[in-house]
Amino acid sequence: MSPPRGFPAAEFRDRTARAQALMAEAGLDALLLTTEPELRYYTGFLTRFWESPTRPWFLVLPATGDPIAVIPSIGAHLMGQTWLQDIRTWQAPDYDDDGIGLLAQTLSDCVPATGRIGVADQMESHLRMPLSALRRLEGLLGARQITGDATITRRLRLVKSDAEIAKITEAVRIGDRAFDRVAEIARPKVALSQVFRDFQRLCLEEGGDWVPYLAGAAAPGGYGDVISPADDTPLATGDVLMLDTGLIRDGYFCDFDRNFSLGPPSDAVAEAHAALIEATQAGFAAARPGARICDLFHAMNTVVNPNAAREGGGADAGRLGHGLGMQLTEWPSIIAADETVLEEGMVLTLEPGVALAGGKIMVHEENIVIKSGGASYLSRPQDREIRVI
Amino acid sequence: MSPPRGFPAAEFRDRTARAQALMAEAGLDALLLTTEPELRYYTGFLTRFWESPTRPWFLVLPATGDPIAVIPSIGAHLMGQTWLQDIRTWQAPDYDDDGIGLLAQTLSDCVPATGRIGVADQMESHLRMPLSALRRLEGLLGARQITGDATITRRLRLVKSDAEIAKITEAVRIGDRAFDRVAEIARPKVALSQVFRDFQRLCLEEGGDWVPYLAGAAAPGGYGDVISPADDTPLATGDVLMLDTGLIRDGYFCDFDRNFSLGPPSDAVAEAHAALIEATQAGFAAARPGARICDLFHAMNTVVNPNAAREGGGADAGRLGHGLGMQLTEWPSIIAADETVLEEGMVLTLEPGVALAGGKIMVHEENIVIKSGGASYLSRPQDREIRVI
Repeated sequence: MSPPRGFPAAEFRDRTARAQALMAEAGLDALLLTTEPELRYYTGFLTRFWESPTRPWFLVLPATGDPIAVIPSIGAHLMGQTWLQDIRTWQAPDYDDDGIGLLAQTLSDCVPATGRIGVADQMESHLRMPLSALRRLEGLLGARQITGDATITRRLRLVKSDAEIAKITEAVRIGDRAFDRVAEIARPKVALSQVFRDFQRLCLEEGGDWVPYLAGAAAPGGYGDVISPADDTPLATGDVLMLDTGLIRDGYFCDFDRNFSLGPPSDAVAEAHAALIEATQAGFAAARPGARICDLFHAMNTVVNPNAAREGGGADAGRLGHGLGMQLTEWPSIIAADETVLEEGMVLTLEPGVALAGGKIMVHEENIVIKSGGASYLSRPQDREIRVI
Repeated sequence: MSPPRGFPAAEFRDRTARAQALMAEAGLDALLLTTEPELRYYTGFLTRFWESPTRPWFLVLPATGDPIAVIPSIGAHLMGQTWLQDIRTWQAPDYDDDGIGLLAQTLSDCVPATGRIGVADQMESHLRMPLSALRRLEGLLGARQITGDATITRRLRLVKSDAEIAKITEAVRIGDRAFDRVAEIARPKVALSQVFRDFQRLCLEEGGDWVPYLAGAAAPGGYGDVISPADDTPLATGDVLMLDTGLIRDGYFCDFDRNFSLGPPSDAVAEAHAALIEATQAGFAAARPGARICDLFHAMNTVVNPNAAREGGGADAGRLGHGLGMQLTEWPSIIAADETVLEEGMVLTLEPGVALAGGKIMVHEENIVIKSGGASYLSRPQDREIRVI
């Protein structure tokens, strides 16, 4: 039984109220939001139209009251179906003033003459507007100051509601079912690009709305990296095939991978896979409320990188997992430097990597949610033995 | 016969040399590039990993010599397969210094102490790095100035090479074949969300590598907008079904739509579709080297919006088409204010819209390339009669 699409308005009112409480603490008179996940988090505005770079989209979250959308008229109909009442539009693209005048007026309506407007300025963020438009906006705002947002939206998004967890769970289940069908599409002599195409088809057939992310590789004894698109090289017996997917269901992602051996694995591959599962299990065991992200890192790193020669298990990935939700990867990163304290409702990936001979690597990934008593797997945890096709 | 994947190194050397010639004119000592299409344009670095917001990626294009990649180590293996020789990496994410120190050092190596570094700052651009990182970078650069890039990369990307046009043509052909199969998947009582899933499957089966964009709608007498994702409403006889896809083949997009009537169309829908085709044909006839983008706009707008009450044919889209290539939508916009002079090698969409009763709209879209003698259709131009399922 799939969870219902969308959220009740109460979810967005609650997110807004919690943001406003943090804004009061931080001395911010408004938040200015410009990116897809930020707008969607507070409004529910879900569209693939962000693929087009043409138009800027703005949301103003004032210190009190509901958020105000300042958006191109092409989005008015869809935004009108969200809980927002105050939707201000301009006909974009406008080469003279592409919404900046309207945005400045809206901010001036909400923010005192010497007030402070927070924008995301930290890691993993960017401002989705032209730099020249930012400069012009600053000029129009007079003594009002654009400053950092004190990580308010990032902090809120870190802990998922039950409704969000239900959507992520649904996306993960779809991914699990697609991975269970890989033997239908992967066999020697099939081009990797065809396997990629077919795997995306499986994700759709199993209920994915769309498939924003698929990476992977196939090579003997491990693979060179985990971010490559497919080429037309045919699979061969002895290859390790890895597929790493981020499919979307109702706006929420799964993000996990599976490794397959075409024919019996070599000892090195079998041992590497077993180590990856052992590391994942160690990370899982450490993941409970009150533990820190760095504890998960060390629990996994001890297994995959016992010499601790460098962080990241030799895989150059730089981390052993991350947050998950409206985006394929979210804050935080599972690294030694991250001291975030785990709370119930956080959703994470555990993603250890190991180095093999010849510069090859293998990576394994599972999705988990933190509950009051400890972690719970969202994805179906894998056996130590690599799946054989 | 599909064109070969990727480009020869000569293509990237040529792009780099042309950028450097424009940099000399503009008095820029380097370009700093931060977004997916910018990096890919000069390097060929193709990965879906940009879906993750975690890591910044940088490319420095000096006044002379080859570009320098300053990237997370997770991308070193894939970047190492491009033509670039100088690839500098750090292990990201790094909470203390996420590449900014290395980037500042690289820029300091290339740029005189009072030199000028260009970044895209115009419409349709953004800087893909945290605002706090930009401030820190500016601090580390001393008297070196970060300034606008004089639209250099945008100007270069406006005119496509023959190899680029071959890739776009291939993507469009795949889209044409998928649209020819819509009768297989769309019939009364099938949920629109299922039609969307199945249409993406058709795009993959016909040779798309992935499907970054699909929007559309199904409703009687036209639809409310052109950017919505699908809901679970079942199709019904009398609906106008519109599907607008941007699929990728080897890194290049198509972007066009098709309208279908479930059962015989109403007179209003039939007339609207005929007007859309007539407008497209008028735009096509006007599209020849030496004409301006605004000429195309007026040629189409006269047909779909004869009262000229407002721009955009009443569809609130704000424009009647746009550039196409590495991105779903590229510069320029087909609006009255755009005076870009058409040149051989430009690839455009013609996308007129009409208003119907009850706030409904219909939109039609074709993809064209400008050749020496005039425009040539990439997509198969449609008849005045709407396709009936």
